[in-house]
Amino acid sequence: MRTLNIETKDKVGENVTVSGWVNTRRDHSKIVFFDLRDRTGLLQIVISPELAGSIRVEDVVSITGTIAKRPDKLINPKLATGTVELQAESIQVLSKSAELPFDMGQPDLEVELPTLLDYRGLTLRHPRVAAIFKVQEVVIDSFRKFLQSQDFMEFQSPSIIGSVPEGGAEVFNVDYFGHSAFLSQSPQLYKSLLVSAFDRVFSVNKVFRAEPSVTTRHITEVVSLDAEMGFIENWEETMDMAENTIKFILSEVKNRCQQELDLFGVEVPKVTDKIPRLKLREVQQIIFDRTGRDCRSEKDLAPEDEREICEYTAEKYGSDLVFVTHFLTAKKPFYVVEDPTDPEYAYS
Amino acid sequence: MRTLNIETKDKVGENVTVSGWVNTRRDHSKIVFFDLRDRTGLLQIVISPELAGSIRVEDVVSITGTIAKRPDKLINPKLATGTVELQAESIQVLSKSAELPFDMGQPDLEVELPTLLDYRGLTLRHPRVAAIFKVQEVVIDSFRKFLQSQDFMEFQSPSIIGSVPEGGAEVFNVDYFGHSAFLSQSPQLYKSLLVSAFDRVFSVNKVFRAEPSVTTRHITEVVSLDAEMGFIENWEETMDMAENTIKFILSEVKNRCQQELDLFGVEVPKVTDKIPRLKLREVQQIIFDRTGRDCRSEKDLAPEDEREICEYTAEKYGSDLVFVTHFLTAKKPFYVVEDPTDPEYAYS
Repeated sequence: MRTLNIETKDKVGENVTVSGWVNTRRDHSKIVFFDLRDRTGLLQIVISPELAGSIRVEDVVSITGTIAKRPDKLINPKLATGTVELQAESIQVLSKSAELPFDMGQPDLEVELPTLLDYRGLTLRHPRVAAIFKVQEVVIDSFRKFLQSQDFMEFQSPSIIGSVPEGGAEVFNVDYFGHSAFLSQSPQLYKSLLVSAFDRVFSVNKVFRAEPSVTTRHITEVVSLDAEMGFIENWEETMDMAENTIKFILSEVKNRCQQELDLFGVEVPKVTDKIPRLKLREVQQIIFDRTGRDCRSEKDLAPEDEREICEYTAEKYGSDLVFVTHFLTAKKPFYVVEDPTDPEYAYS
Repeated sequence: MRTLNIETKDKVGENVTVSGWVNTRRDHSKIVFFDLRDRTGLLQIVISPELAGSIRVEDVVSITGTIAKRPDKLINPKLATGTVELQAESIQVLSKSAELPFDMGQPDLEVELPTLLDYRGLTLRHPRVAAIFKVQEVVIDSFRKFLQSQDFMEFQSPSIIGSVPEGGAEVFNVDYFGHSAFLSQSPQLYKSLLVSAFDRVFSVNKVFRAEPSVTTRHITEVVSLDAEMGFIENWEETMDMAENTIKFILSEVKNRCQQELDLFGVEVPKVTDKIPRLKLREVQQIIFDRTGRDCRSEKDLAPEDEREICEYTAEKYGSDLVFVTHFLTAKKPFYVVEDPTDPEYAYS
């Protein structure tokens, strides 16, 4: 029976078998140390040079031995299992690693994108790469949990669709048995349909945009987190819901991913009790006043405008996030409602 | 502030506003009854003919009034709010319904598929149609919850891929900026990659198969529930995990969807503590013995074979489910392991 690394800290004196990847190997004259990695973290293995043999980093092994308490001065407070180590009695190689094409021990895996992807089975094991997947999981999971707590029903939105709701630019074409079909760019119309039956719905689904640019803002395949709610009294309720959702997600990422955030030396974005809500034209005036850059008649914000207004709200309100509302009605799709007090601008 | 229908049962004597869809209207000489539907269920509304006016089924309304206890003999035990009713004092029409193209009040919505889809915004509101979406949600949610409880990490698998892992028949082609690309038929290789880093992973993702047949077994776009685990001692552990997952899903559907199951007069499949595990050749022999149909040298089971073996396990073991194992190694993809005791057949 396999014991997980994290469980060994409560098994001092017991004989156990642990399994995982050799994360590091340190050879001393009469003794060898491995850090063994499994899905719960690292465990120090103490092993004789004879048993250690030619075992190397990323070999997949099962090791049987006795869990010992470490001497006080050798306790590693950075490791969840830092109070114990396993004294190896036997080792079984489950899968031998090929020679590594690059050093997996560096804190940042400094490889080019093609290398990162060509060696995906290896690079995914690097802590900083793995962290991205962990944080992604927590973001999606907490989005889902929060909306479930608010009585939203999850639905699965179609990916292959027969017509393009919003214009048709930048859409991927699919040959559907000789008929023309497309990859969905948004679950918008499906959400609207389902709200008319289920009141509150959300989906976590792929959307596809054939954007010919290569920037961090242009991605052809995206996991989209979408929600829609009915029976609102006031359109600001939708912002309240979005605000509470994002605050929950950020608090979950902070609570469940501190180790992953630390690997990048980052913190979750600062968010205040109320996220500032500013109209497009107010935002443009603020940017003009701060920078002299005149975007006051533009229909949208450029990336530099977005950065500038976030800096402003961070300074003024302590919030890294901001709602920008009231875009031009004429530039919005048909389902966006105009502000009755100024129909040129929409509740958007 | 909106009160949900389900909340009214604890608000006798209070003045509230409820919002939703008019599910039914029953006119008596001096009084009109509505059943108002919201996402939590139905509530009986008592309203004067003057206030009720020309309100009709599927109108979306907000109604303000006082919650009254129903007389004992008018209590409806089938309704969660069956002990109360709302005595309407005012009504606001939020959205007027068009004339209905068919009767939404029939227990089974007997419309053809094109009608069902053309009127999706309406047909989704029918209890039996809505039930399908609710059960789907619970199946997926409980799959996810169970695997999370077993320490599996959820990941997002790519949909647009650059090459086809398993043969290439029945794959959808995507024009990817002039390059050849495909819609993924399976997350198999991604799962395998991720297991080599994360040990236990699962995904809930779309897979696409350009199957030219129109049957309940041939669907072009499917939500696939996939999991993969590492460090097994014995391949039967994967069946144990699948068994425990499906048992959890079925128990959740039974607990959370009884009302939906009742609408169809169905129960969840019977499942025993251990789901029977039979080898392909055993299954074929059983079918031959029971029916005289000789499929004993076939490489796979036909749909009628699958029905027959399920009837057998239901009769013999009380299980509607069965594992069929040991398909021909030569017919399986490269990553399937052969049974060392009989390499012609695979651990599959």
